[in-house]
Amino acid sequence: MFQLHPRLAADTRDVTRLTLCRVLLMNDRRFPWLILVPERADIREIHQLSAADRALLVEEIAQVAQAMERFHRADKMNVAALGNMVPQLHVHVIARFTTDPAWPNPVWGKGSAEAYDQKQIDKIVATVKRELAV
Amino acid sequence: MFQLHPRLAADTRDVTRLTLCRVLLMNDRRFPWLILVPERADIREIHQLSAADRALLVEEIAQVAQAMERFHRADKMNVAALGNMVPQLHVHVIARFTTDPAWPNPVWGKGSAEAYDQKQIDKIVATVKRELAV
Repeated sequence: MFQLHPRLAADTRDVTRLTLCRVLLMNDRRFPWLILVPERADIREIHQLSAADRALLVEEIAQVAQAMERFHRADKMNVAALGNMVPQLHVHVIARFTTDPAWPNPVWGKGSAEAYDQKQIDKIVATVKRELAV
Repeated sequence: MFQLHPRLAADTRDVTRLTLCRVLLMNDRRFPWLILVPERADIREIHQLSAADRALLVEEIAQVAQAMERFHRADKMNVAALGNMVPQLHVHVIARFTTDPAWPNPVWGKGSAEAYDQKQIDKIVATVKRELAV
């Protein structure tokens, strides 16, 4: 049975569900940053998913990345499945700007997360749901 | 018309072609590191590909990542489309080990690349072609 890894649960806030993935908000207001987690048990790597789930995954990545790029007027989207810290398969989708504090480097390991307050989270969750039309 | 970005051409060696992607070897012997570049003109983001090309892309990612994980007995595969430096869409597929010089951080921006010699490149190209069965 699928259970969200406790480290992912601690670092994020729940946003919504797509057909395959749970959508989480990284609790770091320095970067617009969502995380997609396929709701399948015991999956660490993209190639461990079924081909049908992989097709869903890449469409959900595209849907989320396109919505974030448009909404934030991002300069570049970063999409990555790393998992060196948290083995459960999860895909980072991050809107990047040439003016952001990590540009042009990746965001991981750059300084410390700065948490949102609850009002900001509520607003973002509503906005993401509207932009994804779910 | 598709043309490989000159920065990608400079940093890599040509390995083979799959249905959608050109497969390149990152010329850095610190990490087993391939790069997939969809041979489509003027594409920066995964969501700019057609849905049919996205389906090919995720299958080619899975094919390459599974082969690398098996061949290298990797502890974790890292898959990422960043493009902050080189805007042409390209997907990093990197075999990671708990003993590698960047673990558990991402590999980008960690020290400097250490080039292969030509004999090593020839051997790797032959090995990748065999493992991908292309």
